[in-house]
Amino acid sequence: MNEIVRTPKPPYYAVIFTSIRTANDKGYEQVANDIVRIVSQQKGFLGAESVRDKDGFGMTISYWASMDSINSWKNNAPHQKAKELGKEKWYSQYMIRVCLVNSDNFFAGNHNTKIK
Amino acid sequence: MNEIVRTPKPPYYAVIFTSIRTANDKGYEQVANDIVRIVSQQKGFLGAESVRDKDGFGMTISYWASMDSINSWKNNAPHQKAKELGKEKWYSQYMIRVCLVNSDNFFAGNHNTKIK
Repeated sequence: MNEIVRTPKPPYYAVIFTSIRTANDKGYEQVANDIVRIVSQQKGFLGAESVRDKDGFGMTISYWASMDSINSWKNNAPHQKAKELGKEKWYSQYMIRVCLVNSDNFFAGNHNTKIK
Repeated sequence: MNEIVRTPKPPYYAVIFTSIRTANDKGYEQVANDIVRIVSQQKGFLGAESVRDKDGFGMTISYWASMDSINSWKNNAPHQKAKELGKEKWYSQYMIRVCLVNSDNFFAGNHNTKIK
């Protein structure tokens, strides 16, 4: 189940990864699962939100405590290997944006949600 | 069709809207369409990327030239009305994050994409 990440009080950092998948799924799920597991062990990782639609357009946003933690993840060996495979096989286009989150605002209503 | 927004050279701004929909769809599509049309006419609006999965978890990121343009949109009357309706009816939870985009990196491969 997808959840909204309950990030700490700003400022913190966000890396927005917007991508379009190819039709090639070979090896993708295994590597994606590995990366999710490894990133969650990184110092300064605050959580991630991820959605992809049926046409292969997706967005993943990871949240970080500092630019140092983002740069360490950028240089992480399994991450670099996954990125190379991604460019070769799984992504036809992507954009990575590194951001400073200056303010945020959380809302929770009293509705029943679609997600159980 | 969803597209990666070809934003100008950083710095620019991003507003990340992560949300969980309720099961109540009444009036949602009409208002959502109206808001897309109105926001695209705002000064400083650079584009938006949006995805929602079948469970109702979604992310919309809008890109902006300045904090002034974000604040003008925040105070826009149809937008404020839509936000009230959203809290009453359509969203069980949401988070809004206002960010400064400091760097970005676009990749385009030679693959065939899933999206036509």
